[in-house]
Amino acid sequence: MGAVERAKWRPEDGPASQQDMRRRNLVLVLAAVAAQGPLSRADVAGRIGLTRPAVSSLVDELIGRGALTEAETTSGGRVGRPGRALAVSRQGPAGLGLEIGVAHLTACVADLRGEPRVWRRVERANAGRSPGQVLAEVSALGAEAEAEAAALGLRVEGRVLAVPGVVANAPRGLVERAPNLGWHAVRLADHWPDPDTVPEPENEANLGALAEYWNAEQPVETFVHVSAEAGIGAALVIDGQLFRGARGFAGELGHIPVQPEGAPCACGARGCLEQYAGEAAVLREAGLAQPLSGPADDPVALLAERAGAGHAPTLRALDRAGHALGLALASAVELIDPDGLVLGGAYAELAEWLLPSVRAELAVRVTVRPWAAEALRSSALGRRGPVLGAAQMTVRRIMADPTRLPAG
Amino acid sequence: MGAVERAKWRPEDGPASQQDMRRRNLVLVLAAVAAQGPLSRADVAGRIGLTRPAVSSLVDELIGRGALTEAETTSGGRVGRPGRALAVSRQGPAGLGLEIGVAHLTACVADLRGEPRVWRRVERANAGRSPGQVLAEVSALGAEAEAEAAALGLRVEGRVLAVPGVVANAPRGLVERAPNLGWHAVRLADHWPDPDTVPEPENEANLGALAEYWNAEQPVETFVHVSAEAGIGAALVIDGQLFRGARGFAGELGHIPVQPEGAPCACGARGCLEQYAGEAAVLREAGLAQPLSGPADDPVALLAERAGAGHAPTLRALDRAGHALGLALASAVELIDPDGLVLGGAYAELAEWLLPSVRAELAVRVTVRPWAAEALRSSALGRRGPVLGAAQMTVRRIMADPTRLPAG
Repeated sequence: MGAVERAKWRPEDGPASQQDMRRRNLVLVLAAVAAQGPLSRADVAGRIGLTRPAVSSLVDELIGRGALTEAETTSGGRVGRPGRALAVSRQGPAGLGLEIGVAHLTACVADLRGEPRVWRRVERANAGRSPGQVLAEVSALGAEAEAEAAALGLRVEGRVLAVPGVVANAPRGLVERAPNLGWHAVRLADHWPDPDTVPEPENEANLGALAEYWNAEQPVETFVHVSAEAGIGAALVIDGQLFRGARGFAGELGHIPVQPEGAPCACGARGCLEQYAGEAAVLREAGLAQPLSGPADDPVALLAERAGAGHAPTLRALDRAGHALGLALASAVELIDPDGLVLGGAYAELAEWLLPSVRAELAVRVTVRPWAAEALRSSALGRRGPVLGAAQMTVRRIMADPTRLPAG
Repeated sequence: MGAVERAKWRPEDGPASQQDMRRRNLVLVLAAVAAQGPLSRADVAGRIGLTRPAVSSLVDELIGRGALTEAETTSGGRVGRPGRALAVSRQGPAGLGLEIGVAHLTACVADLRGEPRVWRRVERANAGRSPGQVLAEVSALGAEAEAEAAALGLRVEGRVLAVPGVVANAPRGLVERAPNLGWHAVRLADHWPDPDTVPEPENEANLGALAEYWNAEQPVETFVHVSAEAGIGAALVIDGQLFRGARGFAGELGHIPVQPEGAPCACGARGCLEQYAGEAAVLREAGLAQPLSGPADDPVALLAERAGAGHAPTLRALDRAGHALGLALASAVELIDPDGLVLGGAYAELAEWLLPSVRAELAVRVTVRPWAAEALRSSALGRRGPVLGAAQMTVRRIMADPTRLPAG
């Protein structure tokens, strides 16, 4: 049994139709080829339990929509005998991911197999700039990436923008607030230069968590993904699905009270995790607060450099941050009972110094259930996660419903 | 958008079939009659968007399985004209709920409309007794309830047992531990007298939360339900589904650290919520620890009586418990972003004295999102919730798949 007793269908979804059945079967064929391809049509029929003619009709539709390709194979290939082999398209449908960071803009195009094919990144101090200006620049970066992708035969079918801020479940298209950019209630459509390419905004922590899930070799199905850029965010993946919360605010780990009568937080409460494990708090504790003098004004790289060099105040600051993080994560484990915890984003680059104290705190706090130290690990994607997730979001949607693609 | 982006179907579920479609449509007809009945066949067809002959075939099957009845109506009835009206059966399929509490055994039979039709309860001090003895007694109580239900024309199709302990996702059928009963790894089938009536165990907090959801007039879809008997449990309902966690341990609110360096807890950690808001802690703080001298040795009733009489130490103890509960619930709100919080179980009877301090703590702690004081409320079901949920579980499963019922 999974994490959630998922309702696969609820009465309010309405009656079943032949169309639904066909859509499901298209997904089934596409998933089989994605997981095990190249495959012949007969292989696909054998694996998914549909008849050969049914599979052929589905395959033809998927080829028509550009999701599959069918190529001549030679004998000795993976399909075992000469014939025509199906594979997920390396050309055609693709997803564009964009990211606005506090200090950079990034674009990425992923093909239908989820592979990133185009990367573009520019350093920019975005905090405090007007949303219109930032959005015009990231839009231009996206257009460049799309042009580069087009030269590779890729056609962008959807656009998602990772933002370091809150995106409520409704209304969509709105960045409710992004404190570290200084944004409040920014509707992307109001500022985006081209109405045909307005992306869908999504919280960067959510996209980082999804990227972690989608790109793991052996994904755990239910986990908490912690990420840090200037603030501390977290996202919950439950049974392989992003859990956004009732209004889109789930995963606000940074404001879990870790010291009930502790330091006042900018949010108005006291003793929030961010006051102990947030970037500003760690820099202050390490004696590295403004002005920065580290590599490329990147505070995370600076902390890693000092910690690597054995700088005692930095090591102490990271140890303290790890204990606070462990305390907050203990609450998450008690409530959510995840398979795993992942330190992503900037934390991934500091994992060497954070993991021991986070693990020590979890070992002391999580006592009423089995809990293995290795259930906490650091992300391999780190700070690249969110934009990769943004690009792959479109790909995942197509894989879950190939009829989103124009018919051939 | 709901709380979880639910995968309605995943490729690993296999290909769609005509059988799946028919099952879905049976559910649709049954749900329409349950929500809006009595209805004629034509009404059902109009409401769910299937043809009249298709609906008639589905209705015939549901009548054959005992899920629906069809009766002559007179003109002026709710269906608007004379004819035959469909309703969900008051006889036939039913669910048996059982509960083992620390101080009682309870049985309840619910009909297919979810209405409890039979209640049986005996007071028993179950802590420390052998599982075999307790299970034999609750089994006998269940048999009596089934006999009484049979006299009403009800036939029990499934049995669920609420226990004050942990039931892991796998293996099923096992109560992993129930500290307040002194149980460890009790497999029900090993002790149940009749192999044909072995119930499925489920954590009482989980069933209480489901009962709250199923019986609310305007249910919120995503909420945290806190219940207390001797310990403190909680359960998460997400998008209308029980969330059990990766291994079945979700909702361990009682061991959230509310004072990192606080009182040692029996679990081995320090400063757990149970040390501040658990029954034993509140009784101790109120000066009402052993020996009890209140109504029927019921510590909750005793606390309510003393608080109602203005007993200052009891009021202070409940105030302190409420603040601790508010602190733990603040973490739950930050992480999960629920629509609501419900104080259930014994807490419901103490709500008058707990709600103000829980709300005060939430108001101070939950600052980065909108949060209304009324989003926290007390359960109307209180201590009856778990056994009602246990009885309704079977009913809900039938409503979600009427082919579970034997064909007529």
